[in-house]
Amino acid sequence: MRQVLVNGQVSEHLSLLDRSIHYGDGVFETIAVCEGAPLCWEQHLERMAKGCHTLGIPAPSQPVLEKEAAQLIRNQNPGVLKIIISRGQGGRGYQSPEELSPVRILGLYDWPNYPAENSRDGIRAGLCETRLGHNPLLAGIKHLNRLEQVLARSEAGAEGFPEMLMLDISGSVIEGTMSNVFLVSANRLLTPDLGSCGIAGIVRGLILEQAPDLALSAEIKPITLEEVGNADELFFCNSIMGIWPVKQLLGKAYPVGNITGMIKNRLMENRQIVAL
Amino acid sequence: MRQVLVNGQVSEHLSLLDRSIHYGDGVFETIAVCEGAPLCWEQHLERMAKGCHTLGIPAPSQPVLEKEAAQLIRNQNPGVLKIIISRGQGGRGYQSPEELSPVRILGLYDWPNYPAENSRDGIRAGLCETRLGHNPLLAGIKHLNRLEQVLARSEAGAEGFPEMLMLDISGSVIEGTMSNVFLVSANRLLTPDLGSCGIAGIVRGLILEQAPDLALSAEIKPITLEEVGNADELFFCNSIMGIWPVKQLLGKAYPVGNITGMIKNRLMENRQIVAL
Repeated sequence: MRQVLVNGQVSEHLSLLDRSIHYGDGVFETIAVCEGAPLCWEQHLERMAKGCHTLGIPAPSQPVLEKEAAQLIRNQNPGVLKIIISRGQGGRGYQSPEELSPVRILGLYDWPNYPAENSRDGIRAGLCETRLGHNPLLAGIKHLNRLEQVLARSEAGAEGFPEMLMLDISGSVIEGTMSNVFLVSANRLLTPDLGSCGIAGIVRGLILEQAPDLALSAEIKPITLEEVGNADELFFCNSIMGIWPVKQLLGKAYPVGNITGMIKNRLMENRQIVAL
Repeated sequence: MRQVLVNGQVSEHLSLLDRSIHYGDGVFETIAVCEGAPLCWEQHLERMAKGCHTLGIPAPSQPVLEKEAAQLIRNQNPGVLKIIISRGQGGRGYQSPEELSPVRILGLYDWPNYPAENSRDGIRAGLCETRLGHNPLLAGIKHLNRLEQVLARSEAGAEGFPEMLMLDISGSVIEGTMSNVFLVSANRLLTPDLGSCGIAGIVRGLILEQAPDLALSAEIKPITLEEVGNADELFFCNSIMGIWPVKQLLGKAYPVGNITGMIKNRLMENRQIVAL
């Protein structure tokens, strides 16, 4: 992180009493910054507020976050803004304190500079051995309990894949190690149901929302590995990578297809992902 | 926390780059301290090493931990020593750095001073609505991803129960919000299987290990709420509370029975729980 504000103050450290350290007690957002502006700001704040609500953490004031974000990201192009909301200090063991003082951590990161061909030509993807557990209560939320992703991402690093597909403990297809996944099948968009696990990504939400404008039907449903193998197109998406088409997975070659391209172009035109 | 050592240095803060903050990327132990000595030290270190191994974090050197623990806990009687091992800084997003520099956080806490009658006369317990998810990969480990316990503990606080029983998403009995659970049924000890979720507590392990010396048969198995309702005795245990018999749960009264008492006495005699 290049610069960090903790409750508005430039800082390099966090109190050892903070509950994010002890329990992962909070939520986060990772936001693309383009020409000094955060992309999909409203959507990120909405998801953050929803996560805070589920965890019983008062969501931070939007104007305060806007002011602090503006202070960090001015002149950034591109960059990454990460916002962490921790429940803060106090309580007795796992139990929250009665009076909560949540902590805002806003950090600016360098743009990761993924290879341009990931987005343009697609990636070779792998299948993760690490499976996602089932936790309906916390599913969808971008909370700070991310050991599954850490373990999955280690696999991707070791195997040399830019991204890997993750199944859950029942064998259903859920997401990538750091992204959501879409299939194009007979001109329909399909993406896994996240009722038991997975993170409901912002770009995933935008694609589902905008599909009708592109004359596409989109469906959220349980998805099997067999359906992935039979898909016409396949892609991963998140707020930083944008869209990465899959050109190969488990020995099958996929085209970087028209529908994937159309969705990517639309998101770029709408300034919802970074056009590089 | 009264005093904290971060990699051996007295500190009140942790770097904002630490992966415990971002992902809950680490493990912890909570250890009772009695007359300046940590109880069940070997067992705690063994579980910590096992957790570190599963997460791919090099476990800290035992002599170093011993030296740092001794510095903190001398003259404490009683007290609580918490040890956190974080993967440390670095990496790219979820992905670990290639060269790991794990961080040791040793903190000294005041003894919680639970009411003496909890251990002596038993507690009224409740049933948690928060269910434990299934994650076989991480089950048993005392890792830093503890949102489920935070949410469960909030329920216990709101309902006014010293401890509550938790089920998993399949309805099986698993543990308490901060403890393990044992049933005594026809002179046999039963405790839930933790293959899908739950934390394998040190006191739980000691009880299972020592049961034969007390001429008790002990079994780890899936346990239903019905079996809990039919149990002769019921108790929660952890390293700090020791043993809390349950005197009431879901409208049923349980005696503070002989077997529970015998186990508690044996653990106290062995200096494995604090005798207060």
